Amino acid sequence: MAKIAVLGFGTVGSGVCEVISENHESIAHNAAEEISVKYIVDIRDFPDSPFAGLMTKDFSLVENDPEVTIVVETIGGCRVAYDYTRRALLAGKSVVTSNKELVASHGHELLAIAKEKNVNYLFEASVGGGIPIIRPMTQCLTANELDEVYGILNGTTNYILTSMVQDGAAFEDALKEAQRRGYAEQDPTADIEGYDAARKICILADLAFGKNVDPDKISVRGISGVTANDVEYARRLGYKLKLLGRAHRLPDGRVNAYVSPHLISKTSLLSNVDGVMNGIVVHGNALGEAMFYGAGAGKRPTASAVVADVIDAAKHRKARKYIGWDDSEEDYLADFMDQPMRWYVRTGSGLREIGTAFGNLRLISYPGEYPGAGPDEYAFATPVMTRRELDEKLRGFDVRSLFPILD
Amino acid sequence: MAKIAVLGFGTVGSGVCEVISENHESIAHNAAEEISVKYIVDIRDFPDSPFAGLMTKDFSLVENDPEVTIVVETIGGCRVAYDYTRRALLAGKSVVTSNKELVASHGHELLAIAKEKNVNYLFEASVGGGIPIIRPMTQCLTANELDEVYGILNGTTNYILTSMVQDGAAFEDALKEAQRRGYAEQDPTADIEGYDAARKICILADLAFGKNVDPDKISVRGISGVTANDVEYARRLGYKLKLLGRAHRLPDGRVNAYVSPHLISKTSLLSNVDGVMNGIVVHGNALGEAMFYGAGAGKRPTASAVVADVIDAAKHRKARKYIGWDDSEEDYLADFMDQPMRWYVRTGSGLREIGTAFGNLRLISYPGEYPGAGPDEYAFATPVMTRRELDEKLRGFDVRSLFPILD
Repeated sequence: MAKIAVLGFGTVGSGVCEVISENHESIAHNAAEEISVKYIVDIRDFPDSPFAGLMTKDFSLVENDPEVTIVVETIGGCRVAYDYTRRALLAGKSVVTSNKELVASHGHELLAIAKEKNVNYLFEASVGGGIPIIRPMTQCLTANELDEVYGILNGTTNYILTSMVQDGAAFEDALKEAQRRGYAEQDPTADIEGYDAARKICILADLAFGKNVDPDKISVRGISGVTANDVEYARRLGYKLKLLGRAHRLPDGRVNAYVSPHLISKTSLLSNVDGVMNGIVVHGNALGEAMFYGAGAGKRPTASAVVADVIDAAKHRKARKYIGWDDSEEDYLADFMDQPMRWYVRTGSGLREIGTAFGNLRLISYPGEYPGAGPDEYAFATPVMTRRELDEKLRGFDVRSLFPILD
Repeated sequence: MAKIAVLGFGTVGSGVCEVISENHESIAHNAAEEISVKYIVDIRDFPDSPFAGLMTKDFSLVENDPEVTIVVETIGGCRVAYDYTRRALLAGKSVVTSNKELVASHGHELLAIAKEKNVNYLFEASVGGGIPIIRPMTQCLTANELDEVYGILNGTTNYILTSMVQDGAAFEDALKEAQRRGYAEQDPTADIEGYDAARKICILADLAFGKNVDPDKISVRGISGVTANDVEYARRLGYKLKLLGRAHRLPDGRVNAYVSPHLISKTSLLSNVDGVMNGIVVHGNALGEAMFYGAGAGKRPTASAVVADVIDAAKHRKARKYIGWDDSEEDYLADFMDQPMRWYVRTGSGLREIGTAFGNLRLISYPGEYPGAGPDEYAFATPVMTRRELDEKLRGFDVRSLFPILD
C-alpha cells in the first residue's frame, strides 16, 4: 500500500484524486500495490468535495508522516511549490509534478537533492500534458544521439491560431473565445507571449542534450503580433502558422533554443495538430524522426501523466531512476541571431525598398492583389540567412511580422 | 561492462551492431556502463564485415558463457528464434527482440519463463519499428483504462497505398516499385495480406487489455484487393484508404481485434501518415487520445528500439520489469462479424438492387459519372450495421470492395 499526498487541489490536483479513485483497481494492478491519497494540502477550503475529509492546510503533516512516500505537487509556480518540493525530497519522499515552471527553473537542483536522498523527482506531466514524452525520451531513445526536438507545446495558443486559420477569426476574438471555453486564463500572458512554451522546450532540451538550458536566456516570441493577414499569406504559400518551441544541437556542441511563431509546411504532421492538442517531434541519429501527439493540457490528460509517474515512483521506491542533466557552461546556448533560416516577412514598406534589400524575390502578396490582401503591405519569403543578416537588410523597413519558415 | 550476443546478422542485427559501435559513448552514458557485442551468431559467413571477428555459428557458445547477460534475437520467425530465445532465457539471460511473429505467437510463454528466471524479455522493436510504443503503453499510460488501440502498423502496405493515392499508381505497379526500393520483400505475402499487421495489433491488444490475443484467430484482410477506383472513390468522399490494425474493448469486457483496409477521414492525423511511416493511436479513459508516429521499419530505426531495450535490460539486470499479460478465456475474442460500423461498398450490381437492399442512399460514384469512374460500378457508404447484417443485404450482389469507415 502506497500512501500519497497531493499538494494543490486545483484543476490537475483534483484530476489526480479523481483518476486514482476511478481507476483504483487497474492502478493497483499496474503498480502491484494499492495506491491511496492520505492528504490533500491546500490553503483553500473545499467543504463539498468528495475528498473533503483528506484536506489539510498544514504541509508539515505530510513532511513528518513516514507513511507518505510519494508527494504530488500540483501547486504551480516557483514559490510555495519550490519550498514544499525541496522539503519533501529532503524528507526522503519521491515527488511527482506537472509544474513546468519549477522543473525548468529549479529542476537541476531538485534532481540533485532527489539523487542525494535516493528518491525520484518525476515530471512527465510538465511537458505535453498527457502525452508520454519525458519517459520515451529518457528511456526509449537512449540508443540515439538526439539532434533536434521541437513542437507545438502550448494548447492555448494552438487553439487561438487554429481558430484564426480555420474560421478566419481575429486574434482578439479567438483569445476571447478561448477564455470563454476555459482554454485560456484570465491573464493569458504566459501562454500568449510564449513563456509557457519556453519552459517546456527548455525541459526537453535539458533531457535531449544533457545540459541545463535557462528559459530566461532563450529568445521567446509569442503570438500576440500574429494577424489574420499572416494566416492568409501563409496559406497561400502552402504553409500553416504554428507557435513552436524548438531546440537543436549545433555541430560545435552548443544548442540553439527558442520559441517563435513559424510557418510550417501543410504536408508536415505538425500542421494537422490543431485546437488544444500538442505535438512533439524528436530527431535522433538512429531513429530518424518520431512524433508524439495528444492532449497537451486539461484536467484528466494531465492527471493521467501525473498518476503514471506516481505508479512509477511506487515501483521504484528503493531504486532511483536515472534522469537528470548537467550544469551548462556560460557559452552553451548559441545566439538565436546567428542561426541561418528562411524567413517570412510582412512589411508596409514598398517594392523599391524590398528590391534594393533582397534583389529578385517572389512575393507572397502585394497590396490589393486579391480581396483580403492588405491594402498597403507586401509579404515575402527570404532565402536562408541569419536573423542578424535579415535585420541588417530590413533596416529602415516598416516590419509588421517576421517568422522563421520550417520546411 | 555488459557483454551481449546478437543472434542473426540480417538487416536489424547488423543495424544493432552498427548503432552500438557508432553511439558507443552516449550509450555507455545512458546505460551507466559500457555495452559491447561479444558474439554474433549466424549460419552465414560475413568475411568482409567489420564485425567478422565476432561471428560464430554455434549458439551454445552464447548459451554457456556466463559473461553474456543480454541476448539480442533478430533472426525472425518462430523456429530457430523460438528455440534460442527459450534457451537463452532458461540460461538466465535477458532477451531483446524485434521479432513480432515470435512475440505474438509465443510471447505469453516466453514472458513466463523470463519471470521465472527473473530476467527480462523485451520487444519494443516488435511493433512500430523505432517508434516508442510498447514502453509508453506499459509505463506511461498505466493510470488509464485503455479502451482502444489502432494504427498503421505496416510500412510496406502504407507505401503502396500512398503511391496509389498520391501518384494514381495501380496496385501491381506500386508493389513492384516498393520491391525495387527494398520496402517490400520478394515474397510480400505477410505484408500485403495483413499478417504482419495482425501480429502487431495482437501484441498491442495483449498489452492494452491484459489478455492474450492469438493472431491466427482474428479477422485479417490485406490490401491485395484494393484498386485505384477505391482510392478515387474514397477521395471523393473526403477519406483516405489506409490498412489499419485495430483492437477495442467491448462493454462486456471482450475484445474485437482485426486488420482491414479502412476509409479514414482526411482530417484525422493518421491520414497524413504516409509512405513507409507508421502511426499508432491509443485511447484511454483519462488521457483521451495519443498518437505515436515514426519509421515503422528499416535498419537503423528498428535498431534504435532494440538497443534502447538492451540499455534497459542492462539497467534492470537484477530487477525484472513487470510486463506481460494473462491467458485469455475461450470466448475473449468478440466476433468481427457482430461489430457495428459504417461500410464502404464498391459493386458491379445495379441501382435497383442497391435501392432494394439499402433504401435511399447517397452514392459516392455511379458508372461514367466522371472520367475515372468505373464504367460498370457503383460505390456507396452504408449507415452503421454489422458485417453480418451487411452480408445479408449484399446477398447476390457483385461485391468488389468492402471496407470499414472510421470517422
